[in-house]
Amino acid sequence: MSQTSEAITTYTQLCEHVVETARLVTIRALLEWDERTIMPTAAGPYRAEQITVLSRIIHGRRTDPRIGDWLQELSATDLMASSHSAEATTVRCLQRDFDRQTRIPPALVEAISRQSILGQQAWVAARKNDDFQTFQPLLEQIVDLKRQEAAAVGYTGCAYDALVDEYEPDATTTQLTAVFAALREELVPLLMAIRSSDRVPTTDCLHGEFPIDVQEKFGKHAATEIGFDFSRGRLDVTHHPFCTTLGPCDSRITTRYDSQFFSTAFFGILHEAGHGIYEQGLPSEQFGLPPGMYCSLGIHESQSRLWENLVGRSHAFWQHFYPQAREAFGAALGAVELDEFVSAVNTVRPSLIRVEADEATYNLHIIIRFELEQALINGTLVVEDLPAAWNEKYREYLGVESPNHADGVLQDIHWSSAAIGYFPTYALGNLYAAQFFQAAEAALGDLQPMLAAGEFGPLRAWLGEKIYQHGQCYPAMELATEVSGKPLSHEPLMAHLRGKLEPLYGLA
Amino acid sequence: MSQTSEAITTYTQLCEHVVETARLVTIRALLEWDERTIMPTAAGPYRAEQITVLSRIIHGRRTDPRIGDWLQELSATDLMASSHSAEATTVRCLQRDFDRQTRIPPALVEAISRQSILGQQAWVAARKNDDFQTFQPLLEQIVDLKRQEAAAVGYTGCAYDALVDEYEPDATTTQLTAVFAALREELVPLLMAIRSSDRVPTTDCLHGEFPIDVQEKFGKHAATEIGFDFSRGRLDVTHHPFCTTLGPCDSRITTRYDSQFFSTAFFGILHEAGHGIYEQGLPSEQFGLPPGMYCSLGIHESQSRLWENLVGRSHAFWQHFYPQAREAFGAALGAVELDEFVSAVNTVRPSLIRVEADEATYNLHIIIRFELEQALINGTLVVEDLPAAWNEKYREYLGVESPNHADGVLQDIHWSSAAIGYFPTYALGNLYAAQFFQAAEAALGDLQPMLAAGEFGPLRAWLGEKIYQHGQCYPAMELATEVSGKPLSHEPLMAHLRGKLEPLYGLA
Repeated sequence: MSQTSEAITTYTQLCEHVVETARLVTIRALLEWDERTIMPTAAGPYRAEQITVLSRIIHGRRTDPRIGDWLQELSATDLMASSHSAEATTVRCLQRDFDRQTRIPPALVEAISRQSILGQQAWVAARKNDDFQTFQPLLEQIVDLKRQEAAAVGYTGCAYDALVDEYEPDATTTQLTAVFAALREELVPLLMAIRSSDRVPTTDCLHGEFPIDVQEKFGKHAATEIGFDFSRGRLDVTHHPFCTTLGPCDSRITTRYDSQFFSTAFFGILHEAGHGIYEQGLPSEQFGLPPGMYCSLGIHESQSRLWENLVGRSHAFWQHFYPQAREAFGAALGAVELDEFVSAVNTVRPSLIRVEADEATYNLHIIIRFELEQALINGTLVVEDLPAAWNEKYREYLGVESPNHADGVLQDIHWSSAAIGYFPTYALGNLYAAQFFQAAEAALGDLQPMLAAGEFGPLRAWLGEKIYQHGQCYPAMELATEVSGKPLSHEPLMAHLRGKLEPLYGLA
Repeated sequence: MSQTSEAITTYTQLCEHVVETARLVTIRALLEWDERTIMPTAAGPYRAEQITVLSRIIHGRRTDPRIGDWLQELSATDLMASSHSAEATTVRCLQRDFDRQTRIPPALVEAISRQSILGQQAWVAARKNDDFQTFQPLLEQIVDLKRQEAAAVGYTGCAYDALVDEYEPDATTTQLTAVFAALREELVPLLMAIRSSDRVPTTDCLHGEFPIDVQEKFGKHAATEIGFDFSRGRLDVTHHPFCTTLGPCDSRITTRYDSQFFSTAFFGILHEAGHGIYEQGLPSEQFGLPPGMYCSLGIHESQSRLWENLVGRSHAFWQHFYPQAREAFGAALGAVELDEFVSAVNTVRPSLIRVEADEATYNLHIIIRFELEQALINGTLVVEDLPAAWNEKYREYLGVESPNHADGVLQDIHWSSAAIGYFPTYALGNLYAAQFFQAAEAALGDLQPMLAAGEFGPLRAWLGEKIYQHGQCYPAMELATEVSGKPLSHEPLMAHLRGKLEPLYGLA
């Protein structure tokens, strides 16, 4: 057997192992999807047992020493010659995962898992009772465990890098700090100008009678038109909307409905459909392997934000959809003109709650969390002082003040579930989305007439060719450069926001 | 450590292993439930991969040699002293399962699994095309593999015993033959008398406008009233209705709706709710262990049949529910009197299709299959001659003749999926149901006034005490004797059918 054919045999063994693990991971995703959408209320405790036993099997497979042997054997072969090939990508990404999985001692894995369950339970109660003090010791333990995790994983820059790396591989705190600072520097003055403007578009038309069954039908219709394939997916109801993938032909999106408010469900559906379209566009023959998986959470979020905001809040999009919306929601929109509606869905207003924030202020919510969790991990902020630090940043960046902890420092589940380092991916998503959209316009010409004609195919095909088909073959920042011809920058997002908000608020 | 405390340690290890396997089995049940209810159409092939990998893990755990060691160690200890105790039941039932699982060679397990998938695919096409010939070689292979399975498992009576044992532990072909023959001997003349009667109740009122959303609401309401707990269960739509259990607090029932016909969904829901109520009534603290699991498929079916037929088709039941039904389905039932409706849901008419058969003729459909599959396994009938044998028995027992194979020998999925030995449990269910209902009346007094008042609690509590709480602590036939004071007999079912049908058809 030649060296190459030996390498191919080893590579095949590795892939078979990983693809089978992916089957178990997607089974776990079904358990979680079911729990969050339709599971009977009393079934929770047993569901946790089911997830635990499956997770143990998955962890055993991911840390199987044979993976280390296979990867070592492959690292010096011809298969690695072309760095963006499927083979080289598989070896590179699996090596990173294997190192991370095996470097964290099993006792620490279990401690984090247990603390994350306790933390979430405590958070639910703490938020309900507006009680940070009871939550504080749990969060202290979580921060401590995550610092241990960072130390175990290792890092070259700062400890926070090791945590971000779980969600946004290869991104560094230094890079993120630079791009977020540049964004903040231009965004804060823009928001100040908006706040000082005497033009305040009304959002009244978004509040009214929006029957839930009509919302569902209209939302599904729009999701289908932009390209979500319901023969390979579903839309269901949940409390905290998400998108999940249960297999190469099974991506499920979720939403929640408010019968008196249009935006929650509709833009939520566009957002999750954006995630789903990305998942449905990944190379299905590589499902479970890095070339068939999403690049990073930041890139994933860019796809949801692109369809939700860049497309879904554009005037052109509503030129196509508004006549249908008006017909579907006659009671609420019958007397509302297109321009009034488009203004309403684009208003900007600094607010307390991240998940309800508009397209512009959302980024500041993220930057605040990014700065705070860095400080917690680097030890320059103790958990006890977190509420005060939170409030100070909200005053400084957004000019708002929470009357309580529930809508302040306790509003998000992430930290309670040990997901520290996740938040930056949300703002990255906005930045990537604007940069990709700009690149798509450079390649395809003015997209607005296409959107106004309901032609979403060209944009989707371009995204498929430039982003979806590559899976993890390019690291996220490299992919952004590859797609747009320049490194990630705050400029496209600021240009997009200025282009829309300055006329809306009569600025400059 | 004394012998007993050693035994307790071993018993605990055994139980932990088995309970964890049950978690994986219930995960597989979720994969299957999802596939049969709501999964996106394109997701089928990957779902099969997910089920395969999980099944391999489950099979590995069930044949783990440690189980054999633990069982051997326990077999001679004090834990076995009381034969109906949880401990003795666990050891007894697990020994039977372990023997069965380990006696069948892995290659045969895989061959049956593969052939069952191919068989089902071929059956779908064969039924659609009314083509037995193409299906014949697949069924021949299945019969051959099942004969190999019976030989591997071993038996004292006949080979068919070893197959029945998988679904109805401890039942023998001799016992079944005796009770089915006695039933047939009395049932065939009763049906002949009915056919000769000039009184033919009309079923017209069951056909009309029955809006699906109203059917769903009414069905859920009735299921709740008889005792199905929706905080620990769900009702969904499927093609071939079933009940499945995903955990101690998660039993899901399914149905299908026909907007022009009342009975399919309503009696289907009562039937599946009966299964679900049994599952919900098993001792949840023993979930996954034999004392916490259903006794046999025959006992399971007795619970669905009891609520569907003994309760759900009784005049008393409809005294309570008919006013509500009439209000819910005004268009169809507004002008129909209670007695006419009750007659309609109790008509008897020999027909071709088992799943659409009435309460009385259903048993003959089963007896035909029971006789045919025995003959196939014992080698007195070859697959090639099966259609002719099928038609002959339908003529003889039911007086009907199928114009094609699709509605004849090809109508059921069971044989194509290698489920040979399953059918008898359906007729056993009817026999047990009548015997249990008679015993309940002996214990609780006349049940009819309670049913007419919508009081289902006393009957359910009695079933819980006599049947549900025992799990597998008594073998099915022994349980029947224990509950009713006499061995299983055809008499209660015949008494029930005569008591209802003789007046309805003006007989004797």
